Amino acid sequence: MSQPRALIGKKYPAKQHARNVYNHFKSKNASKAQGSFFFISGENLELYKYCDQTKPIRQNRYFYYLTGCEIPGSHVLYDTEKDELTLYLPDVDKEDIMWSGLPLSKEAALEKYDVDEVKYAAEIEFTKAFTTDINQWNKKFETSLIESDSDFFYALDESRLIKDDYEIELMRHAAKLTDNCHLAVMSATPIETNQTHIHAEFMYHALRQGSKYQSYDPICCSGESCSTLHYVKNDEEINDQRSILIDAGCEWNCYASDVTRCFPINGDWTKEHLEIYNLVLKMQEEAYKLMKPGAKWEDLHLKAHRVLIEGFKELGIFKDYPVEELFENKVSARFFPHGLGHLLGLDTHDVGGYANYSDPDPLLCYLRLRRPLETNMVVTNEPGCYFSPFLLEDVLEEKSKYINREVLDKYWYIGGVRIEDDVLITKDGYEILNKITKDPKEISDIIKNSLNRKFHNIV
Amino acid sequence: MSQPRALIGKKYPAKQHARNVYNHFKSKNASKAQGSFFFISGENLELYKYCDQTKPIRQNRYFYYLTGCEIPGSHVLYDTEKDELTLYLPDVDKEDIMWSGLPLSKEAALEKYDVDEVKYAAEIEFTKAFTTDINQWNKKFETSLIESDSDFFYALDESRLIKDDYEIELMRHAAKLTDNCHLAVMSATPIETNQTHIHAEFMYHALRQGSKYQSYDPICCSGESCSTLHYVKNDEEINDQRSILIDAGCEWNCYASDVTRCFPINGDWTKEHLEIYNLVLKMQEEAYKLMKPGAKWEDLHLKAHRVLIEGFKELGIFKDYPVEELFENKVSARFFPHGLGHLLGLDTHDVGGYANYSDPDPLLCYLRLRRPLETNMVVTNEPGCYFSPFLLEDVLEEKSKYINREVLDKYWYIGGVRIEDDVLITKDGYEILNKITKDPKEISDIIKNSLNRKFHNIV
Repeated sequence: MSQPRALIGKKYPAKQHARNVYNHFKSKNASKAQGSFFFISGENLELYKYCDQTKPIRQNRYFYYLTGCEIPGSHVLYDTEKDELTLYLPDVDKEDIMWSGLPLSKEAALEKYDVDEVKYAAEIEFTKAFTTDINQWNKKFETSLIESDSDFFYALDESRLIKDDYEIELMRHAAKLTDNCHLAVMSATPIETNQTHIHAEFMYHALRQGSKYQSYDPICCSGESCSTLHYVKNDEEINDQRSILIDAGCEWNCYASDVTRCFPINGDWTKEHLEIYNLVLKMQEEAYKLMKPGAKWEDLHLKAHRVLIEGFKELGIFKDYPVEELFENKVSARFFPHGLGHLLGLDTHDVGGYANYSDPDPLLCYLRLRRPLETNMVVTNEPGCYFSPFLLEDVLEEKSKYINREVLDKYWYIGGVRIEDDVLITKDGYEILNKITKDPKEISDIIKNSLNRKFHNIV
Repeated sequence: MSQPRALIGKKYPAKQHARNVYNHFKSKNASKAQGSFFFISGENLELYKYCDQTKPIRQNRYFYYLTGCEIPGSHVLYDTEKDELTLYLPDVDKEDIMWSGLPLSKEAALEKYDVDEVKYAAEIEFTKAFTTDINQWNKKFETSLIESDSDFFYALDESRLIKDDYEIELMRHAAKLTDNCHLAVMSATPIETNQTHIHAEFMYHALRQGSKYQSYDPICCSGESCSTLHYVKNDEEINDQRSILIDAGCEWNCYASDVTRCFPINGDWTKEHLEIYNLVLKMQEEAYKLMKPGAKWEDLHLKAHRVLIEGFKELGIFKDYPVEELFENKVSARFFPHGLGHLLGLDTHDVGGYANYSDPDPLLCYLRLRRPLETNMVVTNEPGCYFSPFLLEDVLEEKSKYINREVLDKYWYIGGVRIEDDVLITKDGYEILNKITKDPKEISDIIKNSLNRKFHNIV
């Protein structure tokens, strides 16, 4: 499948990425960086244990960042002094051609990738180099010749943090494919009776558009399972469950998208479902208002918690205590137990966020992004609100005075609502990369129109 | 998604499998087997390197065979003397419940699996035992307490070789799901312009039917790529390529199906395509005629080669030399370079076949089954005929006197044809588990009818 129009005729900017890494390395430790080499190996094809089948390959993201190359068993060497980038293709295994076809030639690789030279792996003459994984080379070369170093990882991660135009186009494209999948799922719900049908519908449209690998295992829940954050069983009947949550994203050239939408299976929002949906939408909107370079991500995240608290007071789920008291007592923590969002890029939870999972504050310990926003970061904005009996067990006991149990009990059946966009931080604010609607009325119309259309077709 | 009707209310016969393994072990080495324990660990969830996402899980087949359990991080212990089978579930990680939901309880597991006892991994008190993977336990227990042993593997493999009624039902069901996928692909071809659309169509119907994992990466080729045996790129345009080959199979409860069908994209067989198709069909039919307990698989495979040689003589691709001379000179080897078929079960290329990849005979070195057929084996019957410029390069040079190059040149565009069924060996012969048609006229009708239907809908 072909690249988006904006990228036709352009190469993935591997060389510039190598330079960026070098610059960050230098800024961290000039003497170490001076005259250094970087050497990174791509993922190797690996067999399942006791089996002749290979595991699905997922290219090493650091390797991809310096090459744009998805071929397993490749390597890359960057000579920082000469500013020379060399790609090593896997040695040709003649025996394998009958099974797998002809491999890419050196000439074609030089044409395709933004590198100075292409050689075969057998031609690697080893140089003292920084690498991400010393184990991989222990056997072949002396360990002393390569070193894994935290400053090198720092340089790689800081580089990957800020996306260039090419990367942004790839992510825009991934988000567009995901939009189409979400729209297809909404439109197809009239024929769905099991979560796996939703999963199938999403995957079908992803694959048709050329996204063979998803950014992560699609989460397709309904009813109470919506309260399990990374639910991937996707195999329950949905006949009598009205709330649907689908969190899924296409990958394009190793770049991720990550979008969540919620809707009622038949297009009819129940009172409680719509109330929670609108509240989560407001949490997201208020976070957007603060989103710009320099903003502290913690502030956006905590703002979303305050919006949730205010909303719960209005709905009567929280009793009439001051917002600040509810906030200070962390009463909202288990209703919105995950972070507002995370960095997005080559990984779904991209590098450079510096999460602090041992933060004693339950409102912050799952926040995957703990640094101010910068231009050309890509983040997700994904507030949520959940009703999980397991998660709320302690809260209902210890903080019962704040909670109106009778009102809360009306909401369990929803499970949860999450709304998630992929967002580019721009000089003046932000740009949402995905376009699929989150307007509850519009979503309802999409579902109902396709419902009518399907029935019409049957007649 | 629910089990096939024949299995409702029945458990996967793990206990009987353990006994079978013990009996084979005893028959091979009674003193070693005497009073022994078997201990096997299931696959563990594993993270991708530098990433917080887990790799897709594929349960260890030996573990599954003794439990029927797909839960990662489980273990099984069989006490041969007491005839006691114990399943160890992974220890409960409370922190993980918010992300992944509540795990299966011990009580529910005892209800679900055919084991005598269910405990947690922390409760393992280690006993000297035979195992498949000593590395997994080196760290926790003394290596000396467990041993990996070729006689133990032999016992496991011989057990898995012969399928019981429960396993056959699972495989029958997997084949049925695959039938539906192949039919859907044939019916959908009018909207396909890229190989990936075929892949998407197959996956959609597999997933909808509850087969989340495929037995292997689907092979969706067209035109010349049909000559690459394990082609999985699946991303070329097919507008002007008439021949399609799809080799794909659903998995059901870890049991494989593996079915190949070929057809012209628009339903119109070209002369050459149909000639080769009918020849491969005849290769398969002649193999079926010999298929029954006691038959040597090599004989079936070589029969298929003779049929190919006769067919090529009739088509004029081979010149008019005696069949035996062509056969002795291995002129057909590179036109049908793989084996006639392989064992099928928990693995696509199932255990117990004893292939001899270093066999000097080019007609036999890729044959994955080198033992006589037995009742309740499941095998594939999958002859093929390919026109691969790479594979035939040497043949066209060294054996040119046998080949009519002018005639051969008319066939390159087809790439190749393979027809593959999943076959249960029965007391009196065989039963084909998959039912999707391979009749060329019927296939043509399916495609053309859906073509008409789609066009009709558009109007």
